[in-house]
Amino acid sequence: MSDKIFIFDTTLRDGEQVPGCQLNTVEKIEVAKSLEELGVDIIEAGFPISSPGDFNSVVEISKAVTWPTICALTRAVPKDIEVAAEALQYARHKRIHTGIGTSDPHIRYKFNSNREEIIERAVAAVSYAKKFVEDVQFYAEDAGRTENEYLARVVEAVIKAGATVINIPDTTGYCLPSEFAAKIKYLVENVNGIDRVVISTHCHNDLGMATANTMSGLISGARQAEVTINGIGERAGNTALEEVVMALRSHHELGLDTNVNSTRISAVSRQVSSLMNMPVQPNKAIVGRNAFAHSSGIHQDGVLKNRESYEIIDPKDVGIDENSIVLTARSGRAALKHRMHVLGVELDKEALDKAYSEFLKLADRKKEITDDDVLMLAGAHRTNHRIKLEYLQVTSGVGLQSVASVGLNIAGEKFEACASGNGPVDAAISAIKIIIRRQMLVKEFLIQAINKGSNDIGKVHMTVEHEGRQYYGFSANTDIIAASAEAFIDAINKFVK
Amino acid sequence: MSDKIFIFDTTLRDGEQVPGCQLNTVEKIEVAKSLEELGVDIIEAGFPISSPGDFNSVVEISKAVTWPTICALTRAVPKDIEVAAEALQYARHKRIHTGIGTSDPHIRYKFNSNREEIIERAVAAVSYAKKFVEDVQFYAEDAGRTENEYLARVVEAVIKAGATVINIPDTTGYCLPSEFAAKIKYLVENVNGIDRVVISTHCHNDLGMATANTMSGLISGARQAEVTINGIGERAGNTALEEVVMALRSHHELGLDTNVNSTRISAVSRQVSSLMNMPVQPNKAIVGRNAFAHSSGIHQDGVLKNRESYEIIDPKDVGIDENSIVLTARSGRAALKHRMHVLGVELDKEALDKAYSEFLKLADRKKEITDDDVLMLAGAHRTNHRIKLEYLQVTSGVGLQSVASVGLNIAGEKFEACASGNGPVDAAISAIKIIIRRQMLVKEFLIQAINKGSNDIGKVHMTVEHEGRQYYGFSANTDIIAASAEAFIDAINKFVK
Repeated sequence: MSDKIFIFDTTLRDGEQVPGCQLNTVEKIEVAKSLEELGVDIIEAGFPISSPGDFNSVVEISKAVTWPTICALTRAVPKDIEVAAEALQYARHKRIHTGIGTSDPHIRYKFNSNREEIIERAVAAVSYAKKFVEDVQFYAEDAGRTENEYLARVVEAVIKAGATVINIPDTTGYCLPSEFAAKIKYLVENVNGIDRVVISTHCHNDLGMATANTMSGLISGARQAEVTINGIGERAGNTALEEVVMALRSHHELGLDTNVNSTRISAVSRQVSSLMNMPVQPNKAIVGRNAFAHSSGIHQDGVLKNRESYEIIDPKDVGIDENSIVLTARSGRAALKHRMHVLGVELDKEALDKAYSEFLKLADRKKEITDDDVLMLAGAHRTNHRIKLEYLQVTSGVGLQSVASVGLNIAGEKFEACASGNGPVDAAISAIKIIIRRQMLVKEFLIQAINKGSNDIGKVHMTVEHEGRQYYGFSANTDIIAASAEAFIDAINKFVK
Repeated sequence: MSDKIFIFDTTLRDGEQVPGCQLNTVEKIEVAKSLEELGVDIIEAGFPISSPGDFNSVVEISKAVTWPTICALTRAVPKDIEVAAEALQYARHKRIHTGIGTSDPHIRYKFNSNREEIIERAVAAVSYAKKFVEDVQFYAEDAGRTENEYLARVVEAVIKAGATVINIPDTTGYCLPSEFAAKIKYLVENVNGIDRVVISTHCHNDLGMATANTMSGLISGARQAEVTINGIGERAGNTALEEVVMALRSHHELGLDTNVNSTRISAVSRQVSSLMNMPVQPNKAIVGRNAFAHSSGIHQDGVLKNRESYEIIDPKDVGIDENSIVLTARSGRAALKHRMHVLGVELDKEALDKAYSEFLKLADRKKEITDDDVLMLAGAHRTNHRIKLEYLQVTSGVGLQSVASVGLNIAGEKFEACASGNGPVDAAISAIKIIIRRQMLVKEFLIQAINKGSNDIGKVHMTVEHEGRQYYGFSANTDIIAASAEAFIDAINKFVK
């Protein structure tokens, strides 16, 4: 029987503070509903006094969501608390999250105050919040840099004032895991009444250690983790929900678990990334495109022999269909053989050796080896069955409607179409859709163009849904519109035979 | 006096294995030279037996680089070691990195072998490598899941055979920091001869804990960290060089430091991201665009009062000019006042209160508030001095030369130009350059388009260099070509008055 860890999601508060990530109320409700479905325990829905939009979002999320507790942030200021209570009026389960900075730099520079006065203000805020709601969470801002002895005094005082949850944030992302563990342990051992409350971790990732600090805190006695989807948040972000949930699940021996339905993780990650326009880097743990992709020869051989030798998480557990093996110059013979098998080609040892040696030379030039390349190496090339882009012409601009004209060659026959669209990519895709009359939906569309100039190559990754299955397409071109059209056709070729 | 931590960079070996990240030899030399300038101690340059291209890269990097040790990877196989030694022939300081899997799943499934035989093969590989080079590093693959007692026996045996560095990889990224620390400590305390060698950490990020595990290993006695720039690498990647270097530097109390010139970090991060076409997410620690950006009202007020209250690393230390404050609905009065001051506008308290209340309403609608918006709020709008895009028409396609025609309005006067280019963005930028005759260089160009369909909004971030200073431009548009042109003009407006 595992101890329950409460997941406190602050994607819509701490995450939403990020420049460029602001959502409107409708979008916030969409995310809140996904978080409910994901199984988070508490949704921090906003900081109501900070703006009219934030106030309204807390109101609307409170109405839209049933099971999770809705939490609203305040400073240790009466007006903040009153406004938060008002915003929470429709929530079935409600929590006010109030607090104040407790580290010396905060006390001195931000509040121009002293330690005793800070305790008084903390206690006053918690007592006041208790007049409005039963569930009051207190944050000791910059607890990571607050001396443990003083922190324990603050915590003891606010527990006496009625706080139900104590949040220990490493606001600057400065702590080492051993330090943060020691801090939580100190509170567990030295604060009267600590057994009556839930200790919460709130770690930032400035030194890349947010997840490890959170895990250390939980191992040391904290029972709530404050997290965001994809680890978004100010500066280097917050602790990533998906990392903590899966780290706990991979380490059964800790006897700690959450209510999260992990198979929803991948979908929620994509939703938040898309709505907030915050790309997830390919090498992001758990939710990056490459998180479960293998390419080196040594590793591929291992994966093919036994999944357990390289993977500790089954991609299905986080909602990903299967791990993908990409062939590159590092791929071993076993990987090439496996891919041929998947494509329906079997070679004897001698033929495989020959194909592998050809493969290595090709991979050195081509970097990524496609299924077509593999079939060509196996002497079974089938590009002549496929759809090819013959020409593309796009006109777009400011004050113009975008139009595209395309010519496709399908199994030797030529087809042409033109279409207008909402931007040049949309126009090109619409024109292709006129020719390929199938039910197809562009689900994901990622342009990678991080270049030194305006004339460098852009890469386009696209996922197209067709009859309930997803197909991946890719292309690279100095012209990103052309690359987008080519990636779309690449994906289509995977289901139109 | 700090203990020296050796930085072993494997961007060009473990990082380069990532699907889509392969570099050609010229690009690898470029990265190797940057790593030398950055001050890394060891460059792992490739896995020579894996492909002819890899062999050649190790040869050429060996010739191109002077100070760092050049390292080549092998399996515990004689042919691998011979080929690695040959590839390293021109290196001034050379190291062979050989090894074998030591965890039970590896021994059983990958090698179909047993523990005693694995020790024999490990010893044989190290002894054979010693015939070619003095400096031999041994890796115990999947050491993270290898029982400590057996691992100690393997390590003791290879030290006796002449290994100079012992690499303890957490190959699956599975370890908790406390576990990894205990593993290193166990080896330090139980292996005869361990004081004659350097223990190395090689941590993967599958659960988001690579940096924390590396730090735990170093604190427990390891003196080499295997890392990559931006943490790239297979699946969720390797430990990020920048995170370890800056975590050590932020924690002086550990008495551990590297030779890395941290002010080069930002430039090398951008170089690797660009050459490998691997975007760094905005919330990546140390090197993400947002790593030093603040937006929430509470935080901004703190930062303005004292940098130390929220930042533990001075952005200058990693080569970033200054921390940027972005104004959003979360920004406080102090942030608005500061930005107005920077723009040369001073308001009295009453006027500021009024402007702040207007600001909140605008920010709720507009998400990001530009300098122009701030000046408008202050009643000092100056857009009439600026360059505006009147029209843009771009034609591009497959089998076509891209052409763009633009019309600009500069302080009321109209200018027109057209140009062709290498893709539609390049054509549009070239046409604008014909009108604005200044020395301007597009240094960074990032398109964020991670959408649910082809007709969603794309965001363009651009950095333009003019007379040695960098200017940032931004735009969002459903047409990514238009957004690119607008972002370029946005940047130009910051230096053309």
